[in-house]
Amino acid sequence: MGTGSVGPTIAGALSALGHDVVIGTRDPQATLARTEPGATGGPPFGAWHAAHSGVSVATYADAAAAADIVINATNGAGSLEALAAAGAENLAGKVLMDVANPLDFSHGFPPSLNPVNTDSLAEQIQRAFPEARVVKTLNTMTASVMVDPASVAGGDHSVFVSGNDAAAKEVVGGLLAGFGHRDIIDLGDITTARGAEMVLPIWVRIWGVLGTPAFNFKIAR
Amino acid sequence: MGTGSVGPTIAGALSALGHDVVIGTRDPQATLARTEPGATGGPPFGAWHAAHSGVSVATYADAAAAADIVINATNGAGSLEALAAAGAENLAGKVLMDVANPLDFSHGFPPSLNPVNTDSLAEQIQRAFPEARVVKTLNTMTASVMVDPASVAGGDHSVFVSGNDAAAKEVVGGLLAGFGHRDIIDLGDITTARGAEMVLPIWVRIWGVLGTPAFNFKIAR
Repeated sequence: MGTGSVGPTIAGALSALGHDVVIGTRDPQATLARTEPGATGGPPFGAWHAAHSGVSVATYADAAAAADIVINATNGAGSLEALAAAGAENLAGKVLMDVANPLDFSHGFPPSLNPVNTDSLAEQIQRAFPEARVVKTLNTMTASVMVDPASVAGGDHSVFVSGNDAAAKEVVGGLLAGFGHRDIIDLGDITTARGAEMVLPIWVRIWGVLGTPAFNFKIAR
Repeated sequence: MGTGSVGPTIAGALSALGHDVVIGTRDPQATLARTEPGATGGPPFGAWHAAHSGVSVATYADAAAAADIVINATNGAGSLEALAAAGAENLAGKVLMDVANPLDFSHGFPPSLNPVNTDSLAEQIQRAFPEARVVKTLNTMTASVMVDPASVAGGDHSVFVSGNDAAAKEVVGGLLAGFGHRDIIDLGDITTARGAEMVLPIWVRIWGVLGTPAFNFKIAR
């Protein structure tokens, strides 16, 4: 779910690994007709899709209905609405991998994070869709590093998972390992996503200092 | 400033490196008379001090008045009050290295962080003491790693600095290098301390998962 920079990056990588991938979007025809460049300077969605014809495009609801695993890669500010459009019945019982961040750019740069401390986007999603098996992960790195960890420091860095369902975390761990992640740290239940989301403010600053988002946190120990 | 686990650890390390060190505390006689163990299970302060006789103990004001560099290692919830006791006139023009975190344990574990997003403890200190040259650093790791980075992964990890005064950041960078820190990342002005402080919620969770605070963040790139 999501056609910004993250959704297509993950979709293309999963498709290349042999998964059947459907990208969910509000209005598939409008998405495919886009001519403006992607959010981070990538090709317009239609051009991207022409080069990734193995990936289908469908409404949020159709994509979710057909899926074994749903990945929320929508803008954090619109994630609850997009998931509502997908439909609770299409998420029930499924692994829902949430990679979004609840960033608020309404006051410019740097963005604020909302909620913080006593709640997180991942928990909001879990509460709104209690039958989904939500796992927070990958939100602490840029899209290219999510799917190709070896592109940074030979893959010698860490990824976090948070969620209430141990089996769902195992499934997500398999996807992460498929991308090449080697240090998968299970932080605990879904409330631990607060900490993973609160990493974003320093992430944004490190991006500014390094001049590239191609970095990641490693837990040295 | 501060007689918890962080202050004596930094004081002992700086003293061993040949610096003249004075620990500031509210009531030196009461601090030296303590018989209860330290916050993290270390010796009572008096026993610690007997083994570190090169380190003096004085009131906040006397310690700050005599210092070239002031280090705030007090509890984040009490830092502004402790610095007020030190006296604005004793902080003016001086490098003020702030290693504290504004953690709120009033609702138990995990602690909340306050302020967040639009403010930080470091900015509160800089506003309250505009003539001090505040540099936020070291708050993203446990005390033993602050002063002995080589004790974790051979020192292959990162430390952040935030502050408005470039020369003050140079001075702090010298102290950090003296401890053995090799990857010192200057995040920018004092507002970037928001990000460094907002790392604490995941730090606390990683401690729980690893069962030890002897780890650190490395920015892999």
